[in-house]
Amino acid sequence: MRVLGVDPGLTRCGVGVIEGTPAKPRLVACGVIQTPPDMPHEFRLVRIEEGLAEWFDKYQPDRAAVERVYADLNVLSVMGTAQAAGLAQIAAAKRGIPVTLHTPTEVKAAITGSGRAAKAQIGAMVTKILKLSETPKPADAADAVALAICHLWRGSANQRIEEALAKAGKK
Amino acid sequence: MRVLGVDPGLTRCGVGVIEGTPAKPRLVACGVIQTPPDMPHEFRLVRIEEGLAEWFDKYQPDRAAVERVYADLNVLSVMGTAQAAGLAQIAAAKRGIPVTLHTPTEVKAAITGSGRAAKAQIGAMVTKILKLSETPKPADAADAVALAICHLWRGSANQRIEEALAKAGKK
Repeated sequence: MRVLGVDPGLTRCGVGVIEGTPAKPRLVACGVIQTPPDMPHEFRLVRIEEGLAEWFDKYQPDRAAVERVYADLNVLSVMGTAQAAGLAQIAAAKRGIPVTLHTPTEVKAAITGSGRAAKAQIGAMVTKILKLSETPKPADAADAVALAICHLWRGSANQRIEEALAKAGKK
Repeated sequence: MRVLGVDPGLTRCGVGVIEGTPAKPRLVACGVIQTPPDMPHEFRLVRIEEGLAEWFDKYQPDRAAVERVYADLNVLSVMGTAQAAGLAQIAAAKRGIPVTLHTPTEVKAAITGSGRAAKAQIGAMVTKILKLSETPKPADAADAVALAICHLWRGSANQRIEEALAKAGKK
């Protein structure tokens, strides 16, 4: 299974692709889609949309995972973040790829064992889990990879539960 | 000049097209793009995107006006509203149509003379300004038409100022 994670943002939208099984995830690629802050807002959105399309089309993920955005995080930047998150969801939906939202707390808890882990810890754990020689940079790229790992693990856990229920005739 | 106004929303996204001069605006069409609340979020966004594309392509506006969304308005629905607003801006930018945001207060002040006018007053004034036999329904459609009128009026005022400055050699 190949998962594309998106850490939505307007200045730096993190993207990360992983592949494999929950026990053996492998990094395929990660990076950021950037837009200049002095560009008119509507053109920044178009550029994010185009950048996401390139990642989806190049890496053909089976699943997409997007960070859930909260309105009260940072009023100044939340609009752009929410809009970038929407574009990631549209990109997945248009390609028939199931898309799931995960909260930052869920990702942190899955990756580090603590829902309140610091940014640096996320990067360190991603590096360890994927057996990389160095931490993905910038942090937005590492966060997107963390989202993809979180999704791979949760999806697998959910599937095991569903299979067990099905076997038990509970479903 | 033909202006398309968009009152962004996920359940009901208002759209209104007017045409003419600031002194003689005429209603071309108005309505809403609706999505069912029980549809997965990403498919609602795709439907809004498609609906907006239809309005832009059918009515070929020269300018687009979109309501500026504030993060603190209503935390529960603001995500969808912000994302719909972003889609309207993308639709305009992709077609080379200049797009402007106006705050609800600016629209109310332009249409009714008061920045704190009630919803019903907007509809009543839109009906009067455009010499309609009845108020556009639902309110989201009337709000989108109000946005378009506000844009036509403000654009014209701004242009007069720019022309006067140009004549005076100040620009």
